[in-house]
Amino acid sequence: MYITQGLHRHLQRCPNATAIRYQGRNITYAEFGDRVARLAGALKRLGVASGDRVAMLSLNSQRYVEYYQAVPWADAVLNPVNIRWSVTEIVYSLDDSQTAFLIVDDNFLGLAGKIVEASKSLRTVIYAGDGPTPEGMLGYEALIVENAPVDDARRGGDSLLGIFYTGGTTGFPKGVMLSHSNVCISSMSFVGAGSCRPDERYLHVMPMYHLADFAAMTALFISGGTHVVLPAFVPQKVLETIATEEVSELLLAPTMIQMLLDYRDKNPEAALFDLSSLQTLGYGASPITPVLLDRARRAFPSAGFRQGYGMTELAPVATILLPEHHSEGDHPGAKTYSAGLPASCVEVRIVDNEDREVARGTVGEIAVRGANVMLGYWNNPQATAEVLRDGWMHTGDGGYMDDDGFIYVCDRLKDMIVSGGENIYSAEVETAISNHAAVAQVAVIGIPCEKWGETVHAVIIRKPDANVTDEEIVAHCREHIAGYKCPRSVEFRDSLPLSSVGKVLKTDLRAPFWEGRKRGVA
Amino acid sequence: MYITQGLHRHLQRCPNATAIRYQGRNITYAEFGDRVARLAGALKRLGVASGDRVAMLSLNSQRYVEYYQAVPWADAVLNPVNIRWSVTEIVYSLDDSQTAFLIVDDNFLGLAGKIVEASKSLRTVIYAGDGPTPEGMLGYEALIVENAPVDDARRGGDSLLGIFYTGGTTGFPKGVMLSHSNVCISSMSFVGAGSCRPDERYLHVMPMYHLADFAAMTALFISGGTHVVLPAFVPQKVLETIATEEVSELLLAPTMIQMLLDYRDKNPEAALFDLSSLQTLGYGASPITPVLLDRARRAFPSAGFRQGYGMTELAPVATILLPEHHSEGDHPGAKTYSAGLPASCVEVRIVDNEDREVARGTVGEIAVRGANVMLGYWNNPQATAEVLRDGWMHTGDGGYMDDDGFIYVCDRLKDMIVSGGENIYSAEVETAISNHAAVAQVAVIGIPCEKWGETVHAVIIRKPDANVTDEEIVAHCREHIAGYKCPRSVEFRDSLPLSSVGKVLKTDLRAPFWEGRKRGVA
Repeated sequence: MYITQGLHRHLQRCPNATAIRYQGRNITYAEFGDRVARLAGALKRLGVASGDRVAMLSLNSQRYVEYYQAVPWADAVLNPVNIRWSVTEIVYSLDDSQTAFLIVDDNFLGLAGKIVEASKSLRTVIYAGDGPTPEGMLGYEALIVENAPVDDARRGGDSLLGIFYTGGTTGFPKGVMLSHSNVCISSMSFVGAGSCRPDERYLHVMPMYHLADFAAMTALFISGGTHVVLPAFVPQKVLETIATEEVSELLLAPTMIQMLLDYRDKNPEAALFDLSSLQTLGYGASPITPVLLDRARRAFPSAGFRQGYGMTELAPVATILLPEHHSEGDHPGAKTYSAGLPASCVEVRIVDNEDREVARGTVGEIAVRGANVMLGYWNNPQATAEVLRDGWMHTGDGGYMDDDGFIYVCDRLKDMIVSGGENIYSAEVETAISNHAAVAQVAVIGIPCEKWGETVHAVIIRKPDANVTDEEIVAHCREHIAGYKCPRSVEFRDSLPLSSVGKVLKTDLRAPFWEGRKRGVA
Repeated sequence: MYITQGLHRHLQRCPNATAIRYQGRNITYAEFGDRVARLAGALKRLGVASGDRVAMLSLNSQRYVEYYQAVPWADAVLNPVNIRWSVTEIVYSLDDSQTAFLIVDDNFLGLAGKIVEASKSLRTVIYAGDGPTPEGMLGYEALIVENAPVDDARRGGDSLLGIFYTGGTTGFPKGVMLSHSNVCISSMSFVGAGSCRPDERYLHVMPMYHLADFAAMTALFISGGTHVVLPAFVPQKVLETIATEEVSELLLAPTMIQMLLDYRDKNPEAALFDLSSLQTLGYGASPITPVLLDRARRAFPSAGFRQGYGMTELAPVATILLPEHHSEGDHPGAKTYSAGLPASCVEVRIVDNEDREVARGTVGEIAVRGANVMLGYWNNPQATAEVLRDGWMHTGDGGYMDDDGFIYVCDRLKDMIVSGGENIYSAEVETAISNHAAVAQVAVIGIPCEKWGETVHAVIIRKPDANVTDEEIVAHCREHIAGYKCPRSVEFRDSLPLSSVGKVLKTDLRAPFWEGRKRGVA
């Protein structure tokens, strides 16, 4: 399989059907396909060779969808950039993957200058905005007008489709290499589970750089549904678009669902939008609470709920909780708060430290095998070998399986902090903090927070005689990592609890904050 | 992907769930998986090496399902044998593929002796019957008891899964080489189109040697549905089994649907069986007539209808006509009598003799591209090159596409005869007839028949002074080809209508027989 096959199928079958709805405009398959083939032509003329990486830093747009099809069409490799990252993180990912080409929209023009300055690999920046093309950049629309369409390279199967950088536990992002097959097969399992059907009107509101949205996009290209595109998550816009575009499916993080419902409760005129077109409300990143599920059911009376659990390394689906498993109430045996069953392309098992499967109900590491498992980490065979053993991807997530084979995720990566639906790797924050001259040792944990689920809390041992305030630590972090990863609270201590092999016992550190509460679901 | 992945997933997730219902017995995944791993162990101990072919000649059974999983598990290659073939055809396919191992059930014990005698490649015959193991054969059940389970080879992706012989136009069968990916992806497109869901109870009644059933079997292993197995199509048994096993899905040829309904009309007690469990009635091989669809709708009130069009070379799905496209009546724009839209894994286009796409509504050759397209014909690069060009499988079927992209099949292979749901290649029958000493020239065509759709009609020019009767021609055919391929009527003439390049004009030959009728749909 290859990523552009769905596009070809619909180009041939129904060229005048609507592929995309964006800013109130219809974009047909014929129009979209022509632009994709021209953009691919432009990339090739600019010197993008087979296997070269092309990055994109942008909010959601029609052009982002074009990017995802045009880059493989030109036989190049995708490298979508996390829109929440700092310049340091972006430059690291571009240089690590030796990316010479970057497409940037109006929202990131400010960052682009700094990125170009700092990056060693970047050579060409394409401006995919709506104003005049800035000095030193190439205009996206001009490239499409000036270049003739080229034939699709139709590379597929196990060949490299893209490098998807994900926050790594080493303090720097790791480039997840995914093949055409990885993403196509993962996407087909969406379709098999009833998502992204041929008559779907799917609202892209999760950021497109993220694999969750890209997999849904791929599923829609396979089935033939319509892409409805919003630049970003804005509650008023989401509610309005569901009503005006008759959106039938949507994916959100539970925190976004909460924000949407809160907004609706506070704005009586927003409550007037007709949301009855919504057939499927997908959610991921974390499980949904009973209270929120109940509220969501009332707001979206026609919708079924579908949870996906996975990670970039799994392209991204590991398990799916179907609408029929979202039973009412919290009775024993209810599956609502599980992550569902393994998706159709994957096997899941729970293993102990020595890769032996544990008994049902016992917490262990969630391991996944299947055609969706990544090729490996770019340029990092050691990190690959650590997680990929015997074809099994070791997720680092703790969880258990019940007697019916449903998976319950207990701890999304041992020490990962989930704040406002964003995954924050404590080790990455620790690396940033430990770079400060006054810091001797640091441990970062998630502590409970009414609004965000968890927030980042740093426990620091200062160097002898060194002096540093919590404000200075946070300011230091802001220079090196994204704002949402920076600690919200800082605490100074004389010692940290250590295990017999010298590891910081974060469970002990977290305990007083979480007393009487449960972190996660289990 | 690999063919046994679904089995592994359910073995791990729900070992005590029912995998198969056969002869009133429940076979759990655990039991089934253990037998598969032991049979694979037995094959390896018998000397089946990586890539060796293992054939099976049997009616449908639990053991046939085991065969389909155990052979790839042992890293060997499938070679399921057409149960309608003559000894000559079977031996040709076994020797062509150098198959040394054959599994045979009680129904084909009579043939087995002759096959062993005639085959040059066959070394070992395994008896998968219920009586005492015949002299010179190995007992299937004894092999399972005596051999320990082995690990699955887990070969997958583009590696060779099986050789599926299909009646060729050269007069001898051609071995279609299919990979794991071919069959898995084709099967996933079934699931994506709503077939073979996780809660399905699917009745295997189409012969298992045929790819239509094997693809459904694979889809069920992927999704987790239950296999309900009947040895063969017997109307009383089919109706009874739908009722007692609460069958939810079933695939039949339209002629079988007709036989089922005729039987039910004639046997009042058969009309008492509760058929309301049936959710999906799939059909293939030929389109359904309005009258038959209407009757079927009344007999199966809860069922949706789903047509699949394809061929072994396409593993096997090219297009699917969904239940919602089976509209009532025969109004303009009704899609009921089309073959539907391209399946999710494939592109379809209609081309002229020079591979240029023709305009909508124009009849041309149906060409298919996608991950389902075969690796090629075994040992026959020339035949492969004739049909596989630029990644497109040229089906040899005539058809057209309407403005909505629906495909209409006009002529299932230009001169193929469809009789009782079986495809009969005229060239193959012609080769058999032309081997007769008295025959100078022959053309075989399909002529209309109330019961079978078409029957085989031979038009023969005798050699000068030669004398042969129609009975002698038919008797000669029976020695060389399967009974159902033999002519039902024979006609002697002095000349045949020829084209400018010397080809027999079969359209002209057929014309008087089909006057006032339509052959096929268009």
